[in-house]
Amino acid sequence: MRVSMKFPGEDTGPEGNVRARGYGITCVLEDGQVLEKAAANISVVRGTLSAQRAAAMSSRGRGSIDPKGGQPYAAAAMSLVFHSAHPLIPTLRADVRLFQVGDEAWYGGGCDLTPSYLDEADTQQFHRYWKDACDKYKPELYGELKDWCDRYFYIPARKEHRGVGGLFFDDMSSGEAGFDVEAFVRDVGDGILPSWLPIVERHRDQPFTEAQRNWQLLRRGRYIEFNLLYDRGIKFGLDGGRIESIMVSAPPLIAWKYNVTPQPGSAEEEVMRVLQQPRAWA
Amino acid sequence: MRVSMKFPGEDTGPEGNVRARGYGITCVLEDGQVLEKAAANISVVRGTLSAQRAAAMSSRGRGSIDPKGGQPYAAAAMSLVFHSAHPLIPTLRADVRLFQVGDEAWYGGGCDLTPSYLDEADTQQFHRYWKDACDKYKPELYGELKDWCDRYFYIPARKEHRGVGGLFFDDMSSGEAGFDVEAFVRDVGDGILPSWLPIVERHRDQPFTEAQRNWQLLRRGRYIEFNLLYDRGIKFGLDGGRIESIMVSAPPLIAWKYNVTPQPGSAEEEVMRVLQQPRAWA
Repeated sequence: MRVSMKFPGEDTGPEGNVRARGYGITCVLEDGQVLEKAAANISVVRGTLSAQRAAAMSSRGRGSIDPKGGQPYAAAAMSLVFHSAHPLIPTLRADVRLFQVGDEAWYGGGCDLTPSYLDEADTQQFHRYWKDACDKYKPELYGELKDWCDRYFYIPARKEHRGVGGLFFDDMSSGEAGFDVEAFVRDVGDGILPSWLPIVERHRDQPFTEAQRNWQLLRRGRYIEFNLLYDRGIKFGLDGGRIESIMVSAPPLIAWKYNVTPQPGSAEEEVMRVLQQPRAWA
Repeated sequence: MRVSMKFPGEDTGPEGNVRARGYGITCVLEDGQVLEKAAANISVVRGTLSAQRAAAMSSRGRGSIDPKGGQPYAAAAMSLVFHSAHPLIPTLRADVRLFQVGDEAWYGGGCDLTPSYLDEADTQQFHRYWKDACDKYKPELYGELKDWCDRYFYIPARKEHRGVGGLFFDDMSSGEAGFDVEAFVRDVGDGILPSWLPIVERHRDQPFTEAQRNWQLLRRGRYIEFNLLYDRGIKFGLDGGRIESIMVSAPPLIAWKYNVTPQPGSAEEEVMRVLQQPRAWA
């Protein structure tokens, strides 16, 4: 097991015309017995909006942002990913983030599951956990964020979703949402471990085969395809961000084989079906 | 060892407003003793230029192409990659391609080396081979295509080149180049194996350590980062192409570790230095 931490307090580099000041913490556990790799990033940045970024945000519905830029902003984010050594324990990804301009704050975040094998009880328990968390705020909230997650974690070139979903949201403000979004995002942050740990406990002592491990390594290929080809957060981060903090989400070991097609009726085919056609779970 | 072939004779999907007709062969060898993965793609496509594609080509200096589109075209490409099981044998990537509109033909291609460890004799031999091949056509050709290769296979987020280079070129026509480009491209195709096999022969029976193998798996992470984040051919192919034929270039097994920094004076540091600062080799 290897634990690394970086707390640079560094200049995060150019953001448009001005330099933003910020710091970050990256914390990594590698080669753990259950967690083959676990990584968490925290970053806090302050800067002045460039015209380009302000125009993009304004057009995405943040109406109070001056599209000409020049306003000071603050941003904070916490993200994490757990890649399990056990092929029956799904990968967990989660984040919460805040973007503040003047008195207004927009929140984003989510928590989602990427299994190599479908376990219906795991998936239902995970989604029910997040439905309960959402129901405290708005009856339709879970359904909206579940659909958003299915849409976001999608690999068009494969016609596959990356996993069995969960929650995903962005640009959410209390004014528009009609509830206390900060409280909701705190609940999301607090819910990450409780939503996942029961799944870990159920599987960590189960035996598994080399064939299951090999399938897990192949499925991780899709995980990195999504991250590098499509993920907006990674594309944004690569533009001047700290590369090792961005790529820390990569699975620790990945395999590619040509044109692998699971046997009809196999457990491998079962998970592919749900990745191709998301289901209702809660 | 597993050898797969696909010869679909299939419709390659939408290209702008019209559908192009074409076929492809993908041939893969997996788990070979020397070649952990070897893959070759051949594709031949005929279609009608869309306005979008014609405008892009015309602006890239193909002056005889009508930017409004509508002209028939033909395209053919052969590409291959050899990922060695041995960490002292570099990855070889090569391709030749042709794009034809009316009586005019534009060629592209290249051949480049991605080692995990720097072997100066290998690298010199490889570059000298390609310099000799270029010198038959134009004295400054090798230097131009060597520099093009260094520029193309670059990972800005890492400030690293993917490998030690070779040749890379695109949009080359006999009219502009002032020599017989078709003959040159045939020489490139014929030279791929002779430029690489002596390197394989020198190393294939050398012993290697687990640490060297692990370093190779980490370096393959950079290979896939380049392919998925930056490679133009892959981005183009993902837009309607056959995904398994595109992703066949992926290394068979890849590892990521956080913030790996080679020891000063180590062989791992030596290769990093040349990836950060390309050298003259021929």
